[in-house]
Amino acid sequence: MTMTIEGKIAGLRHFADLRNWGAHGVEKLVALARKLKAAPPKDLPLRGKSLAFCFMNPSLRTQVSFEVAAASLGAHPVTLFFGQGTWNMESRDGAVMDGAATEHLKDAVPVLGRYCDAVALRAFPSGKTWEEDRKEPQLSPFLRYSTVPVINMESSLGHPCQGLADLMTIQERMDPRRKRFVLTWAPHIKHLPSAVPHSAAQAAVLGGMDLVLCRPEGYDLDGEVMAWLKEESARRGTKVEVTDDPEKAYEGAHVVYAKSWGALSSYGTLPPQDAAFRDRWRVSAEKMRRTERALLMHCLPVRRNLEIDDAALDGPGSVVLDEAENRLHTAKAVLLELLGASK
Amino acid sequence: MTMTIEGKIAGLRHFADLRNWGAHGVEKLVALARKLKAAPPKDLPLRGKSLAFCFMNPSLRTQVSFEVAAASLGAHPVTLFFGQGTWNMESRDGAVMDGAATEHLKDAVPVLGRYCDAVALRAFPSGKTWEEDRKEPQLSPFLRYSTVPVINMESSLGHPCQGLADLMTIQERMDPRRKRFVLTWAPHIKHLPSAVPHSAAQAAVLGGMDLVLCRPEGYDLDGEVMAWLKEESARRGTKVEVTDDPEKAYEGAHVVYAKSWGALSSYGTLPPQDAAFRDRWRVSAEKMRRTERALLMHCLPVRRNLEIDDAALDGPGSVVLDEAENRLHTAKAVLLELLGASK
Amino acid sequence: MTMTIEGKIAGLRHFADLRNWGAHGVEKLVALARKLKAAPPKDLPLRGKSLAFCFMNPSLRTQVSFEVAAASLGAHPVTLFFGQGTWNMESRDGAVMDGAATEHLKDAVPVLGRYCDAVALRAFPSGKTWEEDRKEPQLSPFLRYSTVPVINMESSLGHPCQGLADLMTIQERMDPRRKRFVLTWAPHIKHLPSAVPHSAAQAAVLGGMDLVLCRPEGYDLDGEVMAWLKEESARRGTKVEVTDDPEKAYEGAHVVYAKSWGALSSYGTLPPQDAAFRDRWRVSAEKMRRTERALLMHCLPVRRNLEIDDAALDGPGSVVLDEAENRLHTAKAVLLELLGASK
Repeated sequence: MTMTIEGKIAGLRHFADLRNWGAHGVEKLVALARKLKAAPPKDLPLRGKSLAFCFMNPSLRTQVSFEVAAASLGAHPVTLFFGQGTWNMESRDGAVMDGAATEHLKDAVPVLGRYCDAVALRAFPSGKTWEEDRKEPQLSPFLRYSTVPVINMESSLGHPCQGLADLMTIQERMDPRRKRFVLTWAPHIKHLPSAVPHSAAQAAVLGGMDLVLCRPEGYDLDGEVMAWLKEESARRGTKVEVTDDPEKAYEGAHVVYAKSWGALSSYGTLPPQDAAFRDRWRVSAEKMRRTERALLMHCLPVRRNLEIDDAALDGPGSVVLDEAENRLHTAKAVLLELLGASK
Repeated sequence: MTMTIEGKIAGLRHFADLRNWGAHGVEKLVALARKLKAAPPKDLPLRGKSLAFCFMNPSLRTQVSFEVAAASLGAHPVTLFFGQGTWNMESRDGAVMDGAATEHLKDAVPVLGRYCDAVALRAFPSGKTWEEDRKEPQLSPFLRYSTVPVINMESSLGHPCQGLADLMTIQERMDPRRKRFVLTWAPHIKHLPSAVPHSAAQAAVLGGMDLVLCRPEGYDLDGEVMAWLKEESARRGTKVEVTDDPEKAYEGAHVVYAKSWGALSSYGTLPPQDAAFRDRWRVSAEKMRRTERALLMHCLPVRRNLEIDDAALDGPGSVVLDEAENRLHTAKAVLLELLGASK
Repeated sequence: MTMTIEGKIAGLRHFADLRNWGAHGVEKLVALARKLKAAPPKDLPLRGKSLAFCFMNPSLRTQVSFEVAAASLGAHPVTLFFGQGTWNMESRDGAVMDGAATEHLKDAVPVLGRYCDAVALRAFPSGKTWEEDRKEPQLSPFLRYSTVPVINMESSLGHPCQGLADLMTIQERMDPRRKRFVLTWAPHIKHLPSAVPHSAAQAAVLGGMDLVLCRPEGYDLDGEVMAWLKEESARRGTKVEVTDDPEKAYEGAHVVYAKSWGALSSYGTLPPQDAAFRDRWRVSAEKMRRTERALLMHCLPVRRNLEIDDAALDGPGSVVLDEAENRLHTAKAVLLELLGASK
């Protein structure tokens, strides 16, 4: 299994993939986040530090939660927007740079490390081929060249910050061990990235939950991600189940986690748009009634009445706002942990 | 009269429309702003707070004054730029979101409230129909869904932050009661919003001034705004006069407030561009000599020698820079008042 | 010789052009920057101040280094992006503003001075005619109208912040006096501005170095800049040499400073793109072996294997990352000096 290259520089830790942190590491971060939520630190533990948040894609929750997390801990957030033609970066070693790229990440990333104490990157997949996208053409060079901790604010393969917030939200309401976590595909008008379902599934398994992956045929997760989920579950004695039957999947669920993602096997093509298909996959209050009063989760933004019915989203089990809020507390935990200020 | 829906959540106050604050509320904010200008607080009364400033339109004075106000009081400003295709928001209840909008304000606005202690919005009118624009399609959902105080940084109907700074600037130089405030239309090459003239007129009337609205036929203010101005003046025993004769209007003026705005009756069409019309309506040093050494005010940006002559704008009565500066002090006052830190 | 108009307001100092600071002023700033690098101040000497950083062109090092410098000294940085159609500024006195420009710099610049304690501007040349660009159509009005110190973050004629960092980087490794500083033109696919070579040459001469300008025929520096370099060298007893022979120029060099710039004599046209020309001018490890183990410098971003070979750029003499880092420390020095907090 290909692992990301975290921890290459001795003593340097990145937050790029939940798999590298393991159950113990993730548990520690969630516990710290819950402590920070209960009692925000008053003493500005990151005073005097600066943090670079680099966005190659737009963001609401991620930008605001990290800026506020940084500022509330005493650090200065520098928010940078790349792309839109203003910043074309080379990542191939040895390239003769006589094309569109004006700077090599080999230079730009270490420069950021001279100014800032950590660097965070959001870079969506290109959507051309999954084979290329899964190699993380943007994030990998950051991990390779950075001299300071790197935070993955969503890449092709994962959105570990979201996964942390997801697990924290569940833990606030139940002991997740052996509970039934249903990750259900949801209708959409676009082919969306797989980062969120990957990290949600990883977080659930790392939290000790039984995972039910409920998706239409052809909408599987990445093969290596799936293999890891099965291995980790086997190690822990929990279950992984895959189904294309939403009605059955919801039975007995303690958590329903809804998200749309694109088919990796027919990459870039749109999901079916007909009403019957949408009805089958949309989360509804009716479907939710089949569960054990399950929590309803979604990373947001959510397309109301396409992915999830108003009645379900505004219903008693919905914890989407808590989930969004917990992005703030987990962001603080990640920053403190990576910068050695967590104790 | 339609009132905006401030104060819906018990104990929650917004700063969205000067009419809702009334003479006493406005007077209190101006007094606080003047106190803050004389002696900036040293003790960072908003320390640990974060504030979201959301711009759907470009801005100079508004962005810089609010960022500096927030930072100088110890808060962290998060400045967000919406639009340009990156953020399409749904506001219709119950909509099936299978179109361009990726997020419902019903979700996005409460999320901001989980991260930040106040939310501010700048959203210009669409310019399609005044009937639609005057319903505040952007600001209204913010007021409806927000769980934290909302600040209107200019909407279709008003620019209350500007109105506050306007009244403060006048009060620094005179007792405004029963003084002659001439709000004069000015030439322009574009159809501009009516927010500034609305708020300037409201601030003048709330400050106890006699209002002279001097505009070409067809360039009236919004009907409800006008009705409120007349009612409030009647209540206070001051006068409201409407004229299309600039020469007469300037006679005896203590304040000349120049601004261009578009005709609401022929919404979206350009004002006349011929030289005689422009000459009739442009503020000139010559016209200013008809006044009682009036203050010359404009919210900026101003088109020199189209709206106002250089000689008038650079003349002794011009207070446009003070007016701009007072945006900073009134911004501080609004933040302190809404966040309960004004005493 | 045309001097920029710094110091027009009594007691007000700008940082716009190294020539106006002279050897003593530059030396003082570099010494302060080195002191700040060795021991960052803990007491937030700029606490309570706000600084406006205005970008008319994209930037990485400049934005991040100034934001971090400001924040680490206790000031609040306001970063503004102008242009992209959102902000068209008039600078001609007396203009009738009925065109694209919505605000006159005569108004906008003093407004920034009401909110902020210093204003910084990055504005690249238009690339139309050098005659026009060298008049600094963007920077000059800032210097003329500002009521607070102005910092040039790169203009048509110079990039003095880069020049300071360059000299600091050299001083960290040698006593620069009478050392051989080779400023070499480098290949590129674009016609680039001359600001960096101008300031690098000025910094070298002000630091007491012998200057070798090594460039293809037709790629001379601006005539007035060149005249100043010769006068200043004559005054100090150092040498200025101009050559089109890279092999010879590298002989005995203590510093090789590589940079591409466009021909001022055929303004806006691209440099030759053929392989032989590129080979002749590209910095290589082989060419570097002709030097006295020279430092290899570049302001970044650098096009690897077009301007400089990987082997040279990643070789032992390369100090490009230190040079980038020193932008941070010199930025702090400039801020402290201009705002009267350097002692």
